[in-house]
Amino acid sequence: MPDQDGSPPPLSRRALLGGAAAAAGGAVLGAWTQPPNAPNAATAQPNAKAGAVSEAARAAQPSEPAPNAGPPGPPQAPPDPTKVPGPPSEALGPRSPFETPALAPTGVTTGAANTPLQALAGTITPSDLHFQRHHAGVAIIDPARWELLVHGLVDRPTMFTLADLKRLPSVTRTCFVECSGNGRAAYRTPKREMTPQDVDGMSSNSEWTGVPASVLLREVGVQRGASWVLAEGGDASMLTRSVPMAKLLDDAIVAYAQNGEALRAANGYPVRLLLPGFEGNMCIKWLRRLEVKTVPSMTRNETAKYTDPLPNGTSRQFSFEMDAKSIITSPAYPERLAGPGWWQITGLAWSGRGRITRVEVSTDGGRSWAAAELQGPVLPKAYTRFSHMWRWDGRATRLMSRAVDETGYTQPTLAEFRRVRGPGTDYHYNHIRAWDVTADGHVFYGVS
Amino acid sequence: MPDQDGSPPPLSRRALLGGAAAAAGGAVLGAWTQPPNAPNAATAQPNAKAGAVSEAARAAQPSEPAPNAGPPGPPQAPPDPTKVPGPPSEALGPRSPFETPALAPTGVTTGAANTPLQALAGTITPSDLHFQRHHAGVAIIDPARWELLVHGLVDRPTMFTLADLKRLPSVTRTCFVECSGNGRAAYRTPKREMTPQDVDGMSSNSEWTGVPASVLLREVGVQRGASWVLAEGGDASMLTRSVPMAKLLDDAIVAYAQNGEALRAANGYPVRLLLPGFEGNMCIKWLRRLEVKTVPSMTRNETAKYTDPLPNGTSRQFSFEMDAKSIITSPAYPERLAGPGWWQITGLAWSGRGRITRVEVSTDGGRSWAAAELQGPVLPKAYTRFSHMWRWDGRATRLMSRAVDETGYTQPTLAEFRRVRGPGTDYHYNHIRAWDVTADGHVFYGVS
Repeated sequence: MPDQDGSPPPLSRRALLGGAAAAAGGAVLGAWTQPPNAPNAATAQPNAKAGAVSEAARAAQPSEPAPNAGPPGPPQAPPDPTKVPGPPSEALGPRSPFETPALAPTGVTTGAANTPLQALAGTITPSDLHFQRHHAGVAIIDPARWELLVHGLVDRPTMFTLADLKRLPSVTRTCFVECSGNGRAAYRTPKREMTPQDVDGMSSNSEWTGVPASVLLREVGVQRGASWVLAEGGDASMLTRSVPMAKLLDDAIVAYAQNGEALRAANGYPVRLLLPGFEGNMCIKWLRRLEVKTVPSMTRNETAKYTDPLPNGTSRQFSFEMDAKSIITSPAYPERLAGPGWWQITGLAWSGRGRITRVEVSTDGGRSWAAAELQGPVLPKAYTRFSHMWRWDGRATRLMSRAVDETGYTQPTLAEFRRVRGPGTDYHYNHIRAWDVTADGHVFYGVS
Repeated sequence: MPDQDGSPPPLSRRALLGGAAAAAGGAVLGAWTQPPNAPNAATAQPNAKAGAVSEAARAAQPSEPAPNAGPPGPPQAPPDPTKVPGPPSEALGPRSPFETPALAPTGVTTGAANTPLQALAGTITPSDLHFQRHHAGVAIIDPARWELLVHGLVDRPTMFTLADLKRLPSVTRTCFVECSGNGRAAYRTPKREMTPQDVDGMSSNSEWTGVPASVLLREVGVQRGASWVLAEGGDASMLTRSVPMAKLLDDAIVAYAQNGEALRAANGYPVRLLLPGFEGNMCIKWLRRLEVKTVPSMTRNETAKYTDPLPNGTSRQFSFEMDAKSIITSPAYPERLAGPGWWQITGLAWSGRGRITRVEVSTDGGRSWAAAELQGPVLPKAYTRFSHMWRWDGRATRLMSRAVDETGYTQPTLAEFRRVRGPGTDYHYNHIRAWDVTADGHVFYGVS
């Protein structure tokens, strides 16, 4: 309720910024100048075809008066909508025809499809926009024929059906999955015209549900000396990785659901392995076999691939955990700021080692840093949305973010990263990303 | 890591149930008998057309050997999938052709579409499966023409564009939205053949993102005496409700995103009001106007409708907060349990007044109750998934759940609810739901 002088009670620090501006001569919005056709971050589409759909939808709208250009005179009530009932409900609630977010698929047999991070809000990645990376196309598997074999150094080798898994105790948790090669193009061949989707779109965040791997291992009875488990996928590439027993007993999930529903086909339907915080390629999709062993299997996918080449010619192997990382998703290319004033800087931070404890934002190219606000709940090994109100003075500058996790690890600068990992490194690109704002409000990926 | 005798370290209480069964003569799974064609809760469809799609997809699968019928002999590795690369990624990751969850739309101008709760896992409702309820169809609104007028008892009447809103500080939170009439059919005209979708499908849970209503009110400057706000929708029904100023200043959100993306059209695109814990009809979709006032407006939608008739002929008005409630989503109609043994009972609980602190499950028709496990994080005014391992002895019985929230409120029995609210009550049906299990494993809604 309003307090005794009729004004609302004190609000958060963020809202007080608006209050301060109002006290200094007008409300935040009063000082804004927003051209009627300013690009909109959430509807701007990298995909020309999708943009065309939006334009068509817009043209099909019933004619309405143009929006008010602004003062003078108090704003009027919007036009009467009561004469045009809408269409009825459908069996699935489609997106608005004005919204056409899309993955950016590449390749056929071996391919990737990046998530449009700049089109998203909050922390959940819609399942149909979850990034994809595969080595032999998207396996289409009949759940009635699918089985999971758990064998090797166990007392009771067992074949589990999907119905078996759903009968066992379930667990649900939210966490990110990130390709170990995420950020490669931005490091190796950076371009000013890269979107967040181009830079870091091989990362997504979902609520996952399944059976704790520890429950399955309890069911089959792990024997003395068991230290590693070979996980094998059921697509035509039969991707294999060795996973430490400790991880499986800690927080691994044999997952059959994502964001409340069955896994999408490209993300491992009917069942994938989920290793919270570990690199994506270890979270084996279309999981069909777990073999308990005493040693890692040293398969092609963990020797020829998924090792980090270092400057001295050796390789860093078994970089399981994804390092702490962040990226500003707005403002970012291809957005254009309409003019000086207050803008919200927002983005995502995550760490494979636990919770994000702090995200700092620099609006002056790294000379000074301020703590951003973290939107709660801050969950371990999950996307954390940060936001920071920034009063732009209209001069060219560089925006940056850096994440700190609960182990104290701080996201490195590009220079630090390059010195330690070398220009030819091939995975785990977690250096600080930068966005350059020009004096006319354009925003470009910072290439150095 | 395994401990010194080679077996995994102690697991949760739930997994120990499996261990106990193993010690008593075999692992949990070893004791299971699962007919090859047993209905699967997650793929069973109330929609005959959807089911037909699944069958077609199954028939189109490449031929594979039938799954093992079981012992004798150790299980063998699954068949070789490496000769059949899958299709490439698409711009949107579709569901598996074997999964066809669907809303159950009714009506045209005035209609509802219930969420298939029994087909979901975890807590998030996929946006295209979020329940819908509308009075004049689904408004299709051009975001470039949309504006929100905030006026009335304020210093600076203001018209906000969508770009304005996205420039202001954002907030993200997960919470449920529930129609105040949810559960009406199950109370008024119960049938044994009702699914969770039929019983309570006008409730869903999402991660929502938008601007705190308090920020907007700070921007426009609320004047002395302002205690209520009339919120008006932009569809052809122009639904209006009066909202206490205290709620808007507390945790209300002017929301433009749901589960990471723009709102779906049927859920209020481009902007809806979100009042966490309040009845769904107050969370005005297609929001176009907020008018600050000293008194509630007493519009048709808060006098003729959305008041609870009581047994004594009077009505209970302004039942804003949704009472604590729970429903078991599995086992539930039309599932059939394949036989005695361990089964997971799982479902959802929520309260408009805060966190769920306890869910109790009865497997003997209410004679005894046991605390279910709550899957974390337990968030206020949000779905909480509960689960409970149940060893069925094969006799007919009744399953029930009851929720307790942090205010100490306990979900009432059907008899208690009926005594206080009367048989003709029209909203806020939160009595305990029951499921009857027959000796041959069928599960039916408990009608009394």
